[in-house]
Amino acid sequence: MATSFRFAASLRRASQSPRPAPCLSRFRSTVQVRWTGSTSATSEPHQPVEKGIGKGGAAPAKVIKFTSEAYPELQRNSRFAKLTQEHVDYFQNLLGAESAIIDGLSKDASEDIEPFNSDWMRKYRGHAQLVLKPQSTDEVSKILKYCNDNLLAVVPQGGNTGLVGGSVPVFDEIVINLQKMNNIRSFDEVSGILVADAGVILEVADNFLAERRHIFPLDLGAKGSCQIGGNVATNAGGLRLLRYGSLHGNVLGIEVVLPDGTIVDDLSKLRKNNTGYDIKQLFIGGEGTIGIITGISILCPQRSPAINVAYFGLESYEKCQEAFKEAKNQLSEILSAFELMDGRTQKLINRATGKKLPLEGEHPFFCLIETSGSNTDHDNEKLQSFLEHVMETSIVSDGVLAQDQTQIQELWSCREGIPECLGHWGGVYKYDLSLPISDMYDLVNDVRDRLMKAGLVGDEDFHPVVDVVGYGHMGDANLHLNVPTRRYDKEVEKQLEPFVYEWVQMKNGSISAEHGLGIAKKPFIGYSRSDTMIRLMKQIKDLYDPNGIMNPYKYI
Amino acid sequence: MATSFRFAASLRRASQSPRPAPCLSRFRSTVQVRWTGSTSATSEPHQPVEKGIGKGGAAPAKVIKFTSEAYPELQRNSRFAKLTQEHVDYFQNLLGAESAIIDGLSKDASEDIEPFNSDWMRKYRGHAQLVLKPQSTDEVSKILKYCNDNLLAVVPQGGNTGLVGGSVPVFDEIVINLQKMNNIRSFDEVSGILVADAGVILEVADNFLAERRHIFPLDLGAKGSCQIGGNVATNAGGLRLLRYGSLHGNVLGIEVVLPDGTIVDDLSKLRKNNTGYDIKQLFIGGEGTIGIITGISILCPQRSPAINVAYFGLESYEKCQEAFKEAKNQLSEILSAFELMDGRTQKLINRATGKKLPLEGEHPFFCLIETSGSNTDHDNEKLQSFLEHVMETSIVSDGVLAQDQTQIQELWSCREGIPECLGHWGGVYKYDLSLPISDMYDLVNDVRDRLMKAGLVGDEDFHPVVDVVGYGHMGDANLHLNVPTRRYDKEVEKQLEPFVYEWVQMKNGSISAEHGLGIAKKPFIGYSRSDTMIRLMKQIKDLYDPNGIMNPYKYI
Repeated sequence: MATSFRFAASLRRASQSPRPAPCLSRFRSTVQVRWTGSTSATSEPHQPVEKGIGKGGAAPAKVIKFTSEAYPELQRNSRFAKLTQEHVDYFQNLLGAESAIIDGLSKDASEDIEPFNSDWMRKYRGHAQLVLKPQSTDEVSKILKYCNDNLLAVVPQGGNTGLVGGSVPVFDEIVINLQKMNNIRSFDEVSGILVADAGVILEVADNFLAERRHIFPLDLGAKGSCQIGGNVATNAGGLRLLRYGSLHGNVLGIEVVLPDGTIVDDLSKLRKNNTGYDIKQLFIGGEGTIGIITGISILCPQRSPAINVAYFGLESYEKCQEAFKEAKNQLSEILSAFELMDGRTQKLINRATGKKLPLEGEHPFFCLIETSGSNTDHDNEKLQSFLEHVMETSIVSDGVLAQDQTQIQELWSCREGIPECLGHWGGVYKYDLSLPISDMYDLVNDVRDRLMKAGLVGDEDFHPVVDVVGYGHMGDANLHLNVPTRRYDKEVEKQLEPFVYEWVQMKNGSISAEHGLGIAKKPFIGYSRSDTMIRLMKQIKDLYDPNGIMNPYKYI
Repeated sequence: MATSFRFAASLRRASQSPRPAPCLSRFRSTVQVRWTGSTSATSEPHQPVEKGIGKGGAAPAKVIKFTSEAYPELQRNSRFAKLTQEHVDYFQNLLGAESAIIDGLSKDASEDIEPFNSDWMRKYRGHAQLVLKPQSTDEVSKILKYCNDNLLAVVPQGGNTGLVGGSVPVFDEIVINLQKMNNIRSFDEVSGILVADAGVILEVADNFLAERRHIFPLDLGAKGSCQIGGNVATNAGGLRLLRYGSLHGNVLGIEVVLPDGTIVDDLSKLRKNNTGYDIKQLFIGGEGTIGIITGISILCPQRSPAINVAYFGLESYEKCQEAFKEAKNQLSEILSAFELMDGRTQKLINRATGKKLPLEGEHPFFCLIETSGSNTDHDNEKLQSFLEHVMETSIVSDGVLAQDQTQIQELWSCREGIPECLGHWGGVYKYDLSLPISDMYDLVNDVRDRLMKAGLVGDEDFHPVVDVVGYGHMGDANLHLNVPTRRYDKEVEKQLEPFVYEWVQMKNGSISAEHGLGIAKKPFIGYSRSDTMIRLMKQIKDLYDPNGIMNPYKYI
């Protein structure tokens, strides 16, 4: 049959061609490489991108501007106390171990503190003089109570892999890092319920579960560094949300310490518990502004032994929608990811890395689908039948199906390698948006038209903008609009903002689908939330943190 | 092969034997039959069961005691205003249409009001004199603002199918019934997101979705009467939670009116929105105590065309756990229900109805599993292989697999028919509990031992207790402990409470897995929630409803 032949031919090409070099492997930041400096991407109006920075690991590490300088409108809240030796002595006495405290007050510890003061995107940098690494919930409680009583502002910090500057200080807030609370407390193989400290690294948790044929219901690029407490505090989305749903559904319980030191033990191991308001939900996505999560209980699904990945070219965004609808319909329970990449992102990957793309020919759009199921033969059959259908009905123009783990990674790299490649030319304006799926890509076209009309986009060096591209988690209607640039140009920013936010607002979308608010999106919340909602949120903040010591200058 | 032969033999029996009569069909309460009076079941200490009542549709309808008499410790809060003609005139003027208001103040409307004053279990009965049926969110807002300004207490009411007395008044609270707000506002076939008024009946929503190859991610016995707003307000669990997860994950947005009349429009159609505290979660399971939900936005999965149901006999609860583990492992993504019934419940079905059970021979336990998938052949193959495995390894002793829709219903009736059958002898003490799955059935044994030791259980008429049985949603570790009785006996109650609650507390379980608190469980919340949690809940109640007008005397 013609269609399956075309697939088979593509597959042969994929399996016989020599591995493209340089090969884009899955991008996972790890603790070891986190501080070597990579791309500098920004959507903020106040952070000019320094030209020539971020063109690969060889470039010198960018000097990170202090957030207080990048955001001059932010002023330190004078109600907060300044750190004194007495405070440091209290914490030293409380935490005991040398390794549990980095004291930059009584000695010069700037080098040790720096990784806790700045974020992994190297965009935000604070002035903290003290880092605390409690080892127990009780220690967290005593720290917070003391800070609250003494009006010392704090920043809760997990793996510090956030993208909106939420996990680093702005001024001299004390960093409370959870890395030493990293025990898996229990796992029940019958129910699939895992209870663990907040500081357990996501990949560690997932590896632990893999040995027990389960999977953590969240996966994201930073899994080698990010901590599960931070994932919950930021309501991380990631690659498998389409299949496993959001943390609001999967997290069964949390242990959290309130600013006044109260330990809230809601670490339920129950799948159902209808006894009162589900308070824990406020802390899921609360970004450490009303309490510090110290432990979580989470429902983990069975791990699927069979994984398939396919990659298609499509001629329009409408066809992408049709393909998604068919995938939902035909692959249904085994569909675990449906990702969108426009043709421009794929071309830029090729331009940036020289990497040969999996499909020949030009296609305006590409989709990547992943299936995960319990039976390899069944999954293959479903996928084959889906592929034949979408080819026969011309929903997709061409496609390739991975034949082994290497090819799976190869195809995934066409999606996961995008953020890194887009930094090739300089800085990238990045927007993480939720939009109604039918309108989602129109924004990319509108922004491109706008920048084209302003004469800002082109292949020549005098154009500040390389291109305007879109990709993202199509299955979740989550678009990453990216504008790779060659240099900082005020005019680009003027064209982008508030245009992008107004566009999102007009469609009742969200200006932050999965990255959160932090410091980056705080000023723009009004584009996604009504005054009423913002008022209700402020009520909650005031209720739990009347002194405002928790992660100040951010969120709301 | 021996095992598959045994299955085949059982299957032949199931398909060849004449349909048992009377045949238990799936129990769905509907608006039409709701008020004819069925079983009278109680777990409350103050509600004696009247002997001989509830033995079937032929028995005379029980006269329902006023809740204020059954719970003499409850006193009307004197802060609340008493309804006057002026109030009624305001509402009449506001709502206009004759059908939108039942006025029991200026005329005798007790017969019309009665269905709104008492619950469908016929256990709770209030003294409301006024029922309002707003037709828009704006009307709900004006009603609440007026009530709040005038200190008039209210009860939000959906389909009034709750099991804990949460949806009927205790004293003279005004009933605000949502039945007239019953429009489906939108459905997006690509994303599967439904937006609808709170008053849409669950079955109507599901039928609407079925025509569009989607499914409402919640199913329960009362689907013909209950409303989706009420489902969300009570965080209903039901039969498919194992597969589709809880409403905390599936509900994407709500529209809710606060007691002061504020309309909170958080009716997001986005799967991801990380812009601030997820306030809507407080209203999911808030049981109408802090606001009235007027609309919901919910993510609906694809409907599975292939459905299979199997029913097994097992020799111990340990084997049930093994079977569940294997089902999760082998059926994985197609498993949609895993239900537990002990042998005693199945015997009681037989005793109460004469119905022949699907399996011959005695088994201490039975499990029912349902699979739902997109490919019939694949599902059959997976199920067949699972069945062979559990038979070969002696995890299950015998089993039967439904061959058609009639047999599917037949098997489901062995699970869904239980509540009705247990009422055959008189009243039933019912507990809806979450427990760690490994210990779950121990409670049933412990309670049975306790009542046996007290000489209360037996086949002879002088024993007040018929038996102590357990069944439930094993996949969610949700146990329904039921104690069918022949008559009210104070000693039975004394043996049951607080013993059951203390047992649940000892295991960190929940005294209400899916039914909620209402009036029935309010006094017992301390067994499942710490003082800290209760304090935090009271804070939330005070924050949103400082005058306490919303659904008073209940919840918290």
